[in-house]
Amino acid sequence: MAMEDMIPACADIDKAGYWSVECWGGATFDACIRFLNEDPWERLRIFRKLMPNSRLQMLLRAQNLLGYRHYEDGVVDRFVDKAAENGMDVFRVFDALNDIRNLNRSINAVKKAGKHAQGTICYTISPLHTVAGYVEMAKELVDLGCDSLCLKDMAALLKPQPAYDIVKAIKQACGEHVRIHVHCHATTGVTMVSLMKAIEAGADCVDTAISSLSLGPGHNPTESLVEMLDGTGYTTALDKRCILNVKNHFAAIRPRYAEFLSNITGVETDIFESQIPGGMISNMESQLKQQGAANRIKEVLLEVPRVRQVAGYPPLVTPSSQIIGTQAVFNVMMGDYKVLTGEFADLMLGYYGATLGPRDPQVLELASNQAHKEAINCRPADMLKPEWDTLRSDASALPGCDGSDEDVLTFAMFPQVAPRFFATRKDGPKNLGKDPSTVAITSAGAPTPASVRDDGKGPVVAPINYNITFNGKSTKVTVSPA
Amino acid sequence: MAMEDMIPACADIDKAGYWSVECWGGATFDACIRFLNEDPWERLRIFRKLMPNSRLQMLLRAQNLLGYRHYEDGVVDRFVDKAAENGMDVFRVFDALNDIRNLNRSINAVKKAGKHAQGTICYTISPLHTVAGYVEMAKELVDLGCDSLCLKDMAALLKPQPAYDIVKAIKQACGEHVRIHVHCHATTGVTMVSLMKAIEAGADCVDTAISSLSLGPGHNPTESLVEMLDGTGYTTALDKRCILNVKNHFAAIRPRYAEFLSNITGVETDIFESQIPGGMISNMESQLKQQGAANRIKEVLLEVPRVRQVAGYPPLVTPSSQIIGTQAVFNVMMGDYKVLTGEFADLMLGYYGATLGPRDPQVLELASNQAHKEAINCRPADMLKPEWDTLRSDASALPGCDGSDEDVLTFAMFPQVAPRFFATRKDGPKNLGKDPSTVAITSAGAPTPASVRDDGKGPVVAPINYNITFNGKSTKVTVSPA
Repeated sequence: MAMEDMIPACADIDKAGYWSVECWGGATFDACIRFLNEDPWERLRIFRKLMPNSRLQMLLRAQNLLGYRHYEDGVVDRFVDKAAENGMDVFRVFDALNDIRNLNRSINAVKKAGKHAQGTICYTISPLHTVAGYVEMAKELVDLGCDSLCLKDMAALLKPQPAYDIVKAIKQACGEHVRIHVHCHATTGVTMVSLMKAIEAGADCVDTAISSLSLGPGHNPTESLVEMLDGTGYTTALDKRCILNVKNHFAAIRPRYAEFLSNITGVETDIFESQIPGGMISNMESQLKQQGAANRIKEVLLEVPRVRQVAGYPPLVTPSSQIIGTQAVFNVMMGDYKVLTGEFADLMLGYYGATLGPRDPQVLELASNQAHKEAINCRPADMLKPEWDTLRSDASALPGCDGSDEDVLTFAMFPQVAPRFFATRKDGPKNLGKDPSTVAITSAGAPTPASVRDDGKGPVVAPINYNITFNGKSTKVTVSPA
Repeated sequence: MAMEDMIPACADIDKAGYWSVECWGGATFDACIRFLNEDPWERLRIFRKLMPNSRLQMLLRAQNLLGYRHYEDGVVDRFVDKAAENGMDVFRVFDALNDIRNLNRSINAVKKAGKHAQGTICYTISPLHTVAGYVEMAKELVDLGCDSLCLKDMAALLKPQPAYDIVKAIKQACGEHVRIHVHCHATTGVTMVSLMKAIEAGADCVDTAISSLSLGPGHNPTESLVEMLDGTGYTTALDKRCILNVKNHFAAIRPRYAEFLSNITGVETDIFESQIPGGMISNMESQLKQQGAANRIKEVLLEVPRVRQVAGYPPLVTPSSQIIGTQAVFNVMMGDYKVLTGEFADLMLGYYGATLGPRDPQVLELASNQAHKEAINCRPADMLKPEWDTLRSDASALPGCDGSDEDVLTFAMFPQVAPRFFATRKDGPKNLGKDPSTVAITSAGAPTPASVRDDGKGPVVAPINYNITFNGKSTKVTVSPA
C-alpha cells in the first residue's frame, strides 16, 4: 500500500492505545523499492513523525535482516543502528530455524541501541516440536536479555489448547513478569480462540489487524478482540472511537487494492494437513504454472512434508518456506533430489543454521557433492568475512545512490532491485491503488479504461486510447462506452 | 439455492456425523415458491430420501409457523403433523418475543407427532435481559416437555463470557442432562470464541456451516470448530473426509450465487452498538432507497434502539426485527410515531405477545386509537377463530392447487406468493445460479454484453457495441473476442 493511503489514518492509530504499531519489515521494504518507488527509510521517518506517541515495531529476520541470506555481523549492527536512528522502537527478531545462535547478534545490537528486543519463537508442528522445547527456547531468549518474547504463528496452525499450554508453561518457567506477545494469522479460523486461550494463560499482548484489513491470510480483527473480552476480566487499552476511524479509513481504501488481495476470503483448514502457509501455496502454484505443470500442485503439497522431514523439520517461514517449497517442486518435476537448489543444499549443509531434527544423511551427501562444500556445525555468520566496505563501494557506484548508510543497507538487502530503485527514486512514489470499477473490469477480461473519475454523479469511464493496426497501418483510436 | 445444487452433497452430509441437518424453514420455504418455482414440501421429501441416517431439522416460528402472523391452533397442529409426516425430525421452535405462551401449542404438537421439540431462547441485549431471566425461560421450556433447548443468537451479539454464564447457569438450574444447543452467527467475529466458551460450560451441540458457505452474516466454519477442539478434551463426531467433500462441493457452487451473497465478507462489530442484525440493516436501506432517502440510514440506525425501548425491548428477529425496523424508518421519514404501521400497532397492543419490558403508554394509546382496538394481555392465538376450512377453500380455488393439506399450508404461510407458484409449478424448478464470469462483468459496470451463454465449451461473450471516434469521425463499432 502506498504511504499516502496510510497517512490519513496515522493520527487515529497514534491515539488508539495500541501497545505497538508494526509498520516496517521485509515485505514492506521490498514492496517499497520494487513496486512503489518509495524510499523505505523515508517511510519509516514519516511514520515516526506522524505517530510520535507510538512504539513503532518491525519484524527482523535476525541474521538475515530483511534479506534471504546471512549477513556478516557488522552489517547486522549497522542495520539495527540505522533502523533505531530512523525511529524504530521494537524489534521482533526471529530465525526461520529457531536457531538461537542466529538471533544472538541482532538481539545484542537492539539492546546496544537502547531499543526493545523481542525474541521470537516460530511455532510449528512436527513429531519433534513439543511444549517443553518451546519453553527451552524461551529460557534461552530471556537469558540473551530479550525485553519480551513473541510466540509467532505465521501459518495459523496454533490451536487454542497448545496456545494455552505454551504460554502457561513459558510463564511458569520464566516467571510471570516475562512479557509474552502472541502473533497468529487468521487463515484457519481457529486462532481467535487461540488468542483467547493465550490471554487466559497470561499472554500480555496479542496481534490483530483493523477489521477492514483483517481475516483471510491476515490477522484477526482488532474490534472483535476488544468485544470478545467483554466481561472476562481482561481488557485492552484501546479507544473504540479511534479504531472506528481507522477501520473506516481502510474500508474505503481497501477496494483500491482489490487486485492484490488474497483469494482466501473465508477460512482454509487444509493447512492443518499440509502445514503449508497459504502464501507458500500460491508461490508454488506460480512456479508450477511457469513450467506448464499447474496440474501437479497436489503432488507438490504431498511432497512438502517429506522434504521438510529430510531437512530436519524446519518451521516454514521466510526463507525456509521458499527453500522447502521450491525443492518440493523440483522433486516432483525432476525426480526426488535429482537436482537440488543451491539454497536447499545450503539448508542441508547447515549454512542457515541448525534444525531441530537430524537431516537425511543421503540427501546431505548429495548436497555436499553438488555444492562442493562440507556441512558446517558452527553459527553460519561465523563463516562470513566483513562485507560492509564492499557493499558500500558497490552501492555507491550505482546511479542515484546517495552514499548514505541507509542506501548501502537497501542495496545490501535487495541487490537485484535496489539499482533500479536508486535510478528512478527521483520520480517519486507510485500509487498502485486503482479505482475499484477499473479493477473489476480488468479482472473480468474486458477492456481497461485509461482512467475513471467520479464527478458525484457516479463513475465516469474516460475514453480509452488504443493503437490499432489495420491493413498494416497503425492508427491511434479513442474508444468510449456508447 | 436450487435443490439440484445441493443433491450431490447429500450423501456426504448424511455420512458426516452431524447431530442434525437444518435444511428447511421460513426463508428456504419462501425462496422455493417465490424464486425457485420449487415445491418446498417436495424438497423436504427429497432431503428425507437422500439423508436417511440424518436428523432433519427446521426452524419454526412457533405460532407464526413460517409466516408473519399468528395462526390459529388447528393450523399449527396441522403444519407440524405434515412437516413430521414429510420427514422432519427436529423442530427448533422460537418466538420472537420469547413469550412462552406462544411456544406452547407448537411444542405440544411436535411432542404429539413423536418428534424432537427443541425449545428456543432468543438471545438479545437490553437493560432488562439477564442471565437469571434466560434461566427462568429455560426452566419453563423444560417444564413444557422440550427434548432440548437452544440458545439462539441470531445477530452475533453473544460474547464469550455471557455464552459461558448462560449455558452454565441453565445446566445448573435445569440439570446437566438437559441438552443445550448454541446457535450463533459469525458477523461480529467473536462468536467462534463464544462457541468454545459455551462448550466449556457444558453445551452439547453448537451450530456451524461448512467453511465454503460460512462466515460473514452466516455461521462459523465447521472444519475450524473440529480443529479448534484438538487437545481440549472435547471432540465432535464428524468424519473429516466427508466434510471435506461437502466443502469442496459448495466451494464450486458458491460462485454461481455471487449476486445473492452478502456484502459483509469480513466482520462487523458496529452491531454491538446498534444491536441490529445485518440482514435488518439491508432491509431498512432498501426501504429508504425506495423513498429516495438512502442518506438517512444513520438516523434510522439511531432510531431503532429507541423504538425497541418503546416496544418493551423485544429481541430483534423475524418478525419483530422487520416491525421495529420499518417503524424506525417511518419515524425518521415522517416524525416520531406520526404514522404507525399496522404491525407496530399490533406489537404495542400485545397482538404478538408479551415483551419483557413495559411499553410506552403514550405510543400505546396512539396505537389503540389508530388501530381501533384495545390492548390485550391474553395469548394472541386465543383471539383467533378456527381458520382451516376457509384456508382450504381459498387455496383449493386457486389454479394449480392440488388440494393437499401441504398446498393449503403453503397458501396459509404465503397467501401473496402461493397463487403464482401454484400456477407455474408445472414448469418445474428454476436454477438462479449463474456462470461467475457473467456476474463479474455485469457487476463491474462495464459495457454489458448483450448476452452470455455457456455452450459447454466455456462462456461465450456476445458482441459489445462501441462508439469509436477515429480521425475526428464518430462511428458505431461492434467488438467481439477474437
